[in-house]
Amino acid sequence: MTPLLYLVPVLGIVGLIVMFAKAGWVNRQDAGSSDMQEIANAIAAGALAFLKAEWRVLIVFGLAVAVLLAFSGTLVENSDWVIGVAFAIGAFISALAGYIGMNIATKANVRTSQAGRTSLAKALSVSFTGGSVMGIGVASLAVLGLGSLFILFYHLYVGETGNVNGLEMEKALEVLAGFSLGAESIALFARVGGGIYTKAADVGADLVGKVEAGIPEDDPRNPATIADNVGDNVGDVAGMGADLFGSYVATTLATMVLGREIVSTGDNANGIAPIALPMLIAGLGLVFSIISMAFVRVSDDNGSVQKALNIGNWGSIILTAIASFPLVKWLLPSGTMSIRGVEFVSEDVFHSILLGLVVGAIMSAVTEYYTAIGKRPVRSIVQQSSTGHATNIIGGISVGMESTVIPIIVLATGIFLSYKFAGLYGVAIAASGMMATTAMQLAIDAFGPIADNAGGIAEMSHLPEEVRGRTDVLDAVGNTTAATGKGFAIASAALTSLALFAAFCGTAGISSIDIFKADVLAGLFVGAMVPFIFSSLAIAAVGRAAMKMVEEVRRQFREIPGIMEGTAKPEYDKCVAISTQASIREMVAPGLIALLVPVIIGFLFGPEVLGGTLAGVTVSGVLLGIFQNNAGGAWDNAKKSFEKGVDINGTIYYKKSEPHKAAVTGDTVGDPFKDTSGPSMNILIKLMSIVSLVIAPHIAVQKHEASKAPVPPKVVLVAKK
Amino acid sequence: MTPLLYLVPVLGIVGLIVMFAKAGWVNRQDAGSSDMQEIANAIAAGALAFLKAEWRVLIVFGLAVAVLLAFSGTLVENSDWVIGVAFAIGAFISALAGYIGMNIATKANVRTSQAGRTSLAKALSVSFTGGSVMGIGVASLAVLGLGSLFILFYHLYVGETGNVNGLEMEKALEVLAGFSLGAESIALFARVGGGIYTKAADVGADLVGKVEAGIPEDDPRNPATIADNVGDNVGDVAGMGADLFGSYVATTLATMVLGREIVSTGDNANGIAPIALPMLIAGLGLVFSIISMAFVRVSDDNGSVQKALNIGNWGSIILTAIASFPLVKWLLPSGTMSIRGVEFVSEDVFHSILLGLVVGAIMSAVTEYYTAIGKRPVRSIVQQSSTGHATNIIGGISVGMESTVIPIIVLATGIFLSYKFAGLYGVAIAASGMMATTAMQLAIDAFGPIADNAGGIAEMSHLPEEVRGRTDVLDAVGNTTAATGKGFAIASAALTSLALFAAFCGTAGISSIDIFKADVLAGLFVGAMVPFIFSSLAIAAVGRAAMKMVEEVRRQFREIPGIMEGTAKPEYDKCVAISTQASIREMVAPGLIALLVPVIIGFLFGPEVLGGTLAGVTVSGVLLGIFQNNAGGAWDNAKKSFEKGVDINGTIYYKKSEPHKAAVTGDTVGDPFKDTSGPSMNILIKLMSIVSLVIAPHIAVQKHEASKAPVPPKVVLVAKK
Repeated sequence: MTPLLYLVPVLGIVGLIVMFAKAGWVNRQDAGSSDMQEIANAIAAGALAFLKAEWRVLIVFGLAVAVLLAFSGTLVENSDWVIGVAFAIGAFISALAGYIGMNIATKANVRTSQAGRTSLAKALSVSFTGGSVMGIGVASLAVLGLGSLFILFYHLYVGETGNVNGLEMEKALEVLAGFSLGAESIALFARVGGGIYTKAADVGADLVGKVEAGIPEDDPRNPATIADNVGDNVGDVAGMGADLFGSYVATTLATMVLGREIVSTGDNANGIAPIALPMLIAGLGLVFSIISMAFVRVSDDNGSVQKALNIGNWGSIILTAIASFPLVKWLLPSGTMSIRGVEFVSEDVFHSILLGLVVGAIMSAVTEYYTAIGKRPVRSIVQQSSTGHATNIIGGISVGMESTVIPIIVLATGIFLSYKFAGLYGVAIAASGMMATTAMQLAIDAFGPIADNAGGIAEMSHLPEEVRGRTDVLDAVGNTTAATGKGFAIASAALTSLALFAAFCGTAGISSIDIFKADVLAGLFVGAMVPFIFSSLAIAAVGRAAMKMVEEVRRQFREIPGIMEGTAKPEYDKCVAISTQASIREMVAPGLIALLVPVIIGFLFGPEVLGGTLAGVTVSGVLLGIFQNNAGGAWDNAKKSFEKGVDINGTIYYKKSEPHKAAVTGDTVGDPFKDTSGPSMNILIKLMSIVSLVIAPHIAVQKHEASKAPVPPKVVLVAKK
Repeated sequence: MTPLLYLVPVLGIVGLIVMFAKAGWVNRQDAGSSDMQEIANAIAAGALAFLKAEWRVLIVFGLAVAVLLAFSGTLVENSDWVIGVAFAIGAFISALAGYIGMNIATKANVRTSQAGRTSLAKALSVSFTGGSVMGIGVASLAVLGLGSLFILFYHLYVGETGNVNGLEMEKALEVLAGFSLGAESIALFARVGGGIYTKAADVGADLVGKVEAGIPEDDPRNPATIADNVGDNVGDVAGMGADLFGSYVATTLATMVLGREIVSTGDNANGIAPIALPMLIAGLGLVFSIISMAFVRVSDDNGSVQKALNIGNWGSIILTAIASFPLVKWLLPSGTMSIRGVEFVSEDVFHSILLGLVVGAIMSAVTEYYTAIGKRPVRSIVQQSSTGHATNIIGGISVGMESTVIPIIVLATGIFLSYKFAGLYGVAIAASGMMATTAMQLAIDAFGPIADNAGGIAEMSHLPEEVRGRTDVLDAVGNTTAATGKGFAIASAALTSLALFAAFCGTAGISSIDIFKADVLAGLFVGAMVPFIFSSLAIAAVGRAAMKMVEEVRRQFREIPGIMEGTAKPEYDKCVAISTQASIREMVAPGLIALLVPVIIGFLFGPEVLGGTLAGVTVSGVLLGIFQNNAGGAWDNAKKSFEKGVDINGTIYYKKSEPHKAAVTGDTVGDPFKDTSGPSMNILIKLMSIVSLVIAPHIAVQKHEASKAPVPPKVVLVAKK
């Protein structure tokens, strides 16, 4: 091993120290009046109640799977019972990442409202620092966890043998895959559960509050308003934190597994350079994300928040790209390397990293185009709102489907080129490059819901109009970053899945997945169907839970006297309880589908059919993910367009006009698309790939020697007479 | 060759004679009052105007492609310039099939209204006979065209050589593929153009007529009502006729191409039994469909129309299945056959045929479950209509996505088992079995829009209430048969595509499609995206055209005095012109995508990447097809449920209630789903496969000898020291 590897966990610890410092700063900010604090405490309590309820379910599930994995690990030679422990650690850290995010978000929200009384600059500072705590926390935990576990497993399995490309290393990485599986499993449940929670509350609150009772959003008279604000924290913050933690780990792991297969002539890391590289790039990305966060500031109320975020984002990306060049050059062998027959040199690896960054940037840009106010797609939905609800829906679905074209072509080109550069390692390292600045990405993503909450608190505690104006500026930017973040997530998931998929094939001992075989093609069909049933379950769950919420809110309006006059307080906790119970119950079925389908198909039909299934899941999941995220985002902003008035055939329409009502319908349909099922797609496809990778040794078609075994003797064909 | 083959075109001619007899019978029925005839003539004129406009565009396109094909056919040894002629014939017959259907439908509609004045039995008799004319016509033309062209090409290329498994036969079948390409190309344009036409008129008429002006459906005061009724004929009749003609030909052809590859020891058809079998089964199916049509009758007004149709349908299926056993047994070799390494005997082929029939039946049954009034899926949408437009839409989307599960599992099982039975030939012959009773299927399908039109004419010419009641009974059954027909169409398309796909691989000289290769996987992604952009274009086209229609109808209501009082006639022809122009213009882009994508990918990236693309198109097209068809059907019947009143939480809601308005929104969204983009999916996937098959000789990786070439000498591996 190389001492350089110790740098990885050290960087993780440094990140955690920075995180604590930033969290301390946020906590020291003014938390406002007692009214504001009371509301904030109710939100925090609701969020914590959800997390506790969720954990109660997940701890049972987690322990069961950990035991099962530990047992199964003893059955094959290239795994170990330790995989169960790795799984538990991954699951625990994933839950912890969600908790850290939610904890800081429920503190930063009210402090952002209070800061909004002074200036936009101050409000941005508080909300973005809150987001940064989560971003740095998630990335640091990932780097620390992966780095230290890899070092541990290296010593445990490879150790003295020094056989860094053999069965020993394969075993170390297989056990490490358990860590990733733990992380991604929790991520799926957190994303789906949180997504159902937040949208049930949001849709329920809107349907009765805005549409039936005619009271504004976040009005304290609406019994579902606290649940709605809790939802932002458990779905958009805790769910997203677990999601990106899982992605980050999965991407890095997949690259490491493929790195083991690289045949080379020696490097500067005692032969493990290709395995160490993704972890070191992750470490670099963390450092430059932290540095670039200093750039995110606006001078006064006229500063452009979007521009400030862009500077920070691009700063971290460019710095990481520049720094990775000497790292790649120095670390990797100077000669030719090869993986599964594709030859490449260190520059090719660097080009793959750059390509990953470019693909991620284009995906984000396309997403922004399709969901931004004033651009052609959203404008077309606005126009189609003039002829009613139905044409608005048709318009949104059409825009969402159209929005798949460029991302898919970009993605296909990315796969094609990164493979040309450096084979499957190129594809994987492109994803690693894309994910390197996760800390910054997540900080930008998480600041949105914090600002959203801050606006809600400002409304509920009757702060001056200008405060809400400032939080609205932040919130609007947050909507855009949420959309672009999703485009980015799905791109990285596609590349990561492909890498995991390749790792799976290696471990399962298959060298091709031939869809020309009927059984593999049947697997492809079944796999492609999974994202449909998954989405169906998630969307239906939101619909059902929202209907319960509607009934409860209607009941309270009916039965609690004085509620509409503001003289009696609604029973917020009842609504919180409805969202909590519904989301916990409804997250189980989609989660189990994701976990069980690969196991059932793998054991019944073998690895090649499972490979076909994974390809189906990936392709269909990416398409449905892009479709749902972008349709939802476009509907949302079509509705928002009415706030300033829109011109339809020469007439200006505002809120409460008939076309606006149609636009509200579209937004409500889009809510579960963009915040429940859509963003779950990227976890779904990665989780199913990781499950397959973990079971691969059990369903392998043949015991195979590690791929750096001596090159077999050349063969010639001789015809037998 | 075997003289038996001459039976195929003879059966086609017999079919055409029966068709003319039935058409004559329909024409001799009473066409009703002059009022009724005037309306019927307006509908017929509008439909003919559309077909003429469509043909003007398609003739240019068709000639261009024919010339291009003829030229390309001279470039490779296993094709010929005659392929251009075959293409032109296929295109012409496809257009003719559409014309025949539309012509009889526009005569049967008014005669069904008139017959409805007497009894339900009589009305069913007229409308079903009208549908039968189309069904028999389409199937007869297919059998006649395929049979006579095959005989011709056999004499042209194989002739004296007698080499029925070599390059000569490959050439004959390749040229015959041109016929299928012509048929399927026209089918796509007809389906998409007709689908846009009918839904633009329907949505436009409903949005202004029902929703804004509050007048009933088919009210003569609505300027779009003639266009709406024309739409039923050009979309649901002419479009569907061309569609099923194309499917029928493609399925038979694919089986013939694979049949050539079968290695056997001699049969009762001079070595071409596996090639002749699908044509003979098609002939059998035609005969038994005609016979079973006699069973479709109800005794009086209380008879069950659905039951009568079921008896006819199952009669034809069971008779065909029984008769195919001795045919298969006698025709095929008694010994073992093999295709690409899979060995089988004649019983296995029979089992595949049976399996195809079972898969088709299950697909239809599942479709019926998901779209029928009173069943759980439609009931859930009804319930979700109580909380508004948005939850109705969420409910429908969720139901549509869920409805993919069982069909995909059934289909995957069908692929898996039929392959086990008889290799790729088994998959293809299963599709042939499923399609054998196309004449009956189409008769049942086409009677629906005839009954729908009859109801419209009854309404517009103010016939007594009871007449509309009788046509409504027929129309309701027609809605169910339309839905199940689509389930059937998508199942057969999936199997056919797989067979074409296999035929393509054979001709292109590739023996695997390894999605583990990065470029093939990239192709899979791009292919899976095509149905999304195709659907997006089709849906958006309906939205745009409907908006134009809405504006025109609003203008007429505003500018023509006396229109609402019924004293002035609306300008029906303006609306007809809008639908015609819009649909012709908007059908071009999706059509070109389907035709050009395989050509571009095939020539740029080669056959294996194209294979990946085809797999992507097929999987994603099948899923989106099922999703869109069933969501649309479920929304439609959720809306219809309100006619008799629905119970939501103890309250009974009827038409014009708030939940009903939400249900109307869902129905309108579902219209382009189920009648434009959804049913186009099955043509899309087949057309792209046929295009690939036709270009296969040009992009083949190697010149290859026909697969029945002498077995190559065995090889052994010898290590070179």
